[in-house]
Amino acid sequence: MTFISFEGIDGSGKSTQARRLAEALRARGHAVTLTREPGGSPGAEDIRRMVLEGEAERWSARTELLLFTAARRDHLEKTIQPALDRGEIVITDRFADSTRMYQGLRGGLEDQVDILHASMIGVEPDLTVLIDIPAETGLGRARARHGGEQRFEDMGLGLQRQMRDGFLRLAAAPRFQIIDGTGDPDAVAQDVLGAVLARLPL
Amino acid sequence: MTFISFEGIDGSGKSTQARRLAEALRARGHAVTLTREPGGSPGAEDIRRMVLEGEAERWSARTELLLFTAARRDHLEKTIQPALDRGEIVITDRFADSTRMYQGLRGGLEDQVDILHASMIGVEPDLTVLIDIPAETGLGRARARHGGEQRFEDMGLGLQRQMRDGFLRLAAAPRFQIIDGTGDPDAVAQDVLGAVLARLPL
Ligand SMILES: Nc1ncnc2c1ncn2[C@@H]1O[C@H](COP(=O)(O)OP(=O)(O)OP(=O)(O)O)[C@@H](O)[C@H]1O
Ligand SMILES: Nc1ncnc2c1ncn2[C@@H]1O[C@H](COP(=O)(O)OP(=O)(O)OP(=O)(O)O)[C@@H](O)[C@H]1O
Ligand SMILES: [Mg+2]
Ligand SMILES: [Mg+2]
Repeated sequence: MTFISFEGIDGSGKSTQARRLAEALRARGHAVTLTREPGGSPGAEDIRRMVLEGEAERWSARTELLLFTAARRDHLEKTIQPALDRGEIVITDRFADSTRMYQGLRGGLEDQVDILHASMIGVEPDLTVLIDIPAETGLGRARARHGGEQRFEDMGLGLQRQMRDGFLRLAAAPRFQIIDGTGDPDAVAQDVLGAVLARLPL
Repeated sequence: MTFISFEGIDGSGKSTQARRLAEALRARGHAVTLTREPGGSPGAEDIRRMVLEGEAERWSARTELLLFTAARRDHLEKTIQPALDRGEIVITDRFADSTRMYQGLRGGLEDQVDILHASMIGVEPDLTVLIDIPAETGLGRARARHGGEQRFEDMGLGLQRQMRDGFLRLAAAPRFQIIDGTGDPDAVAQDVLGAVLARLPL
């Protein structure tokens, strides 16, 4: 019945806040399906596993985009759409906007991302909550969590800044709600719930 | 340097003739890479295996189209393009025209197939050899070979006729050479070699 996505840079608090919103809406008596990408259905998880296996150079950017789009299509058909048809609220931790940023902006495939989305997915969330934080904050949280794992060191601040700006540009579309993610998790969760209740007929 | 595909309905003789042509061109001193779809590179074979695993209803037609396009992209980047760059002749047993028929015509996804091909593959063979035989002949050969396997019984003559007509419509494009596949394999191989030598600067 209502389809909500969480987006934002690494470490912004998407997973934390998606879970908190699901709990808050369930406490108010709603049936909620909480899901995430990449993955979110058995077929999509299989694709995700295949993409992540092997060396980093295993798949080109274009092949990876096709595989992620296949996973999203499966997630949509097998998890999201059936839950919406049952009248539930669906909350997903990442959706197409993450592909617009990671494969589109970072990978230089903006046009291909848009073409694939229009022809093979065709659905946008009713509401997208963009958890916005400074690049430094996100990188600090991610590093703390992953203990100096190389891929987070490699990403660097410049790229994180570009991604933040990219998300903010997407958020010009009416379906977005920008939420300041720098407060503590309780404060952010309260802002998210307030915005959701104000914007959606729940 | 030269990219040749073989297409045609089930049992038309694509695999037999692709192999025969590779042998004939090697005997004339050419370096030839013989490959096939779906598959043709390690990544594409992994995708193929994943698509074929599990029940028939595992993947929707759209998800399957995305997965096959991902496999083709990998095949193109990892096998076909490098061989062409080395100056070899590449012969592939099936390429994009098979997707136009099986996912496009049979699956009702003609527009999506064309959009995905244009944006994510973008390459056509220099020459496509269409081995043309009547639907009855193809079904007979396939049944003989697969001993009454259910999926061949299910396909039926009507569908095979539609596919043959579909291939013949595609063959209006200049890159196609239609070869009568009803003769014995030696006769067909001779026709194929003659057409290839007449049409390509080998
Ligand atoms: N508001 C917050 N203040 C401080 N730390 C937070 C806050 N929200 C989440 N965290 C912590 O920051 C880290 C990242 O949070 P979370 O996993 O929710 O972010 P994410 O956006 O899902 O990250 P990723 O992009 O890596 O999936 C976690 O260790 C989490 O506990
Ligand atoms: N010209 C021919 N005359 C009679 N039988 C043939 C001829 N060419 C191939 N065959 C036989 O017909 C069967 C199908 O041939 P082949 O595998 O080459 O066709 P194909 O088009 O690759 O089929 P598929 O679509 O199932 O891959 C095989 O058993 C093969 O030995
Ligand atoms: Mg997360
Ligand atoms: Mg064959």
